[in-house]
Amino acid sequence: MTTPRQNRRRERAARGIPEATVARLPVYLRALTGLQERGVATVSSEELAAAAGVNSAKLRKDLSHLGSYGTRGVGYEVEYLVYQISRELGLTQDWVVAIIGVGNLGRALAGYGGFASRGFRVAGLLDADDSIVGQEISGMTVEHIDRLEDMIARHGVSIAVIATPAGAAQGVCDRVVAAGVTSVLNFAPTVLTVPDGVDVRKVDLSIELQILAFHEQRKAGGPDGPAPLVAGDAPPGTKQYVEPVEA
Amino acid sequence: MTTPRQNRRRERAARGIPEATVARLPVYLRALTGLQERGVATVSSEELAAAAGVNSAKLRKDLSHLGSYGTRGVGYEVEYLVYQISRELGLTQDWVVAIIGVGNLGRALAGYGGFASRGFRVAGLLDADDSIVGQEISGMTVEHIDRLEDMIARHGVSIAVIATPAGAAQGVCDRVVAAGVTSVLNFAPTVLTVPDGVDVRKVDLSIELQILAFHEQRKAGGPDGPAPLVAGDAPPGTKQYVEPVEA
Repeated sequence: MTTPRQNRRRERAARGIPEATVARLPVYLRALTGLQERGVATVSSEELAAAAGVNSAKLRKDLSHLGSYGTRGVGYEVEYLVYQISRELGLTQDWVVAIIGVGNLGRALAGYGGFASRGFRVAGLLDADDSIVGQEISGMTVEHIDRLEDMIARHGVSIAVIATPAGAAQGVCDRVVAAGVTSVLNFAPTVLTVPDGVDVRKVDLSIELQILAFHEQRKAGGPDGPAPLVAGDAPPGTKQYVEPVEA
Repeated sequence: MTTPRQNRRRERAARGIPEATVARLPVYLRALTGLQERGVATVSSEELAAAAGVNSAKLRKDLSHLGSYGTRGVGYEVEYLVYQISRELGLTQDWVVAIIGVGNLGRALAGYGGFASRGFRVAGLLDADDSIVGQEISGMTVEHIDRLEDMIARHGVSIAVIATPAGAAQGVCDRVVAAGVTSVLNFAPTVLTVPDGVDVRKVDLSIELQILAFHEQRKAGGPDGPAPLVAGDAPPGTKQYVEPVEA
């Protein structure tokens, strides 16, 4: 005898969710939140795909991994799909984040509204610079980096955001990992080495610019004249609004 | 009679480059630049794929769109591949960028080394706040937003980076588009509407955090217990280092 929940568990374990799908779920979520704010109750796969900048076949396949198939002629129920994606991504619980490095970028991240609205609670800010330690930023007092391990333990930090200069990043990373943190978001312009079982994602703010440069060049006719984009990755009429979709 | 260049042009036009490949080229470029800095002259597709966080079959297919196939038993020549990708992305020429909105994020972007090293030259900073206008930031003087059209014309700005509050972003976007800019990088937490022929890419700094949350949840056993990732998207032994790859 198996319960429905056990069945679902088994199904999911057999099926897994492709990394590329996981990376697109936040983009769907952002589009759905926008619809929700405008009071939209249901959405077709075509509309949602256009808003997220993918084609609708890919969208339907991605959502099928969550067991969400929509209703023919009606589409997807926005509120329920927001719940399903949030649940799958783990956003129905709170995640405690510490930001290490309080330069301009650290300050921008500390005040970034997009974190709190997705369940990421910034518990603390840390810096090595005595002229920054003690400052009030976005309602938090910057603590000295010496307090890193203590802060992680005290607040149950599960994600460390590293926004230090490149030279300091690996040392900070080693310390947060030693303190038990297994997820690191790296804004420092360097590659971090971590042991198995620790996830690092690196943000490179110039990547989107490089993709824009490709399109600019194509519009201008270079390097080998305008080449058509391969159809199928963007629905017609949405090329002017390309959402960043990670895969 | 056709010249080899015409042939290449025709081939590329027939073939196109998939959007997903375009989005991964900057990630390969970053990995290759890292190899170059360490003095590595050739790299196997497996090594490069691992450094970029994709599987090697996908890497080889992506690079084949550039006409780059590597040499069996030797791999790819790092320097030449850097050139090929840079050329394809349009990074062998300079792009002039203006940053509009000089809060913490705008300041962070103004001083971001990753732009200049990829051929993005920040020509100017603009803000509507009189207490910010006139400040020196990263060697530039912040100009009043009234000077926007003038600055675009004067410097030949081709990419506008919008780092204003959400409420101001669409108005700024309309103005840069009216002034002839056809590429917009949007950091404001809002969706921008643009006419056909204008590319907008939106950066959401919380997307990477959401992907980390998914993995944290999986490590913790929820929502339905740890599910295996589908094999094939990440080479073995690289799961601990997941590069953001846009698709």
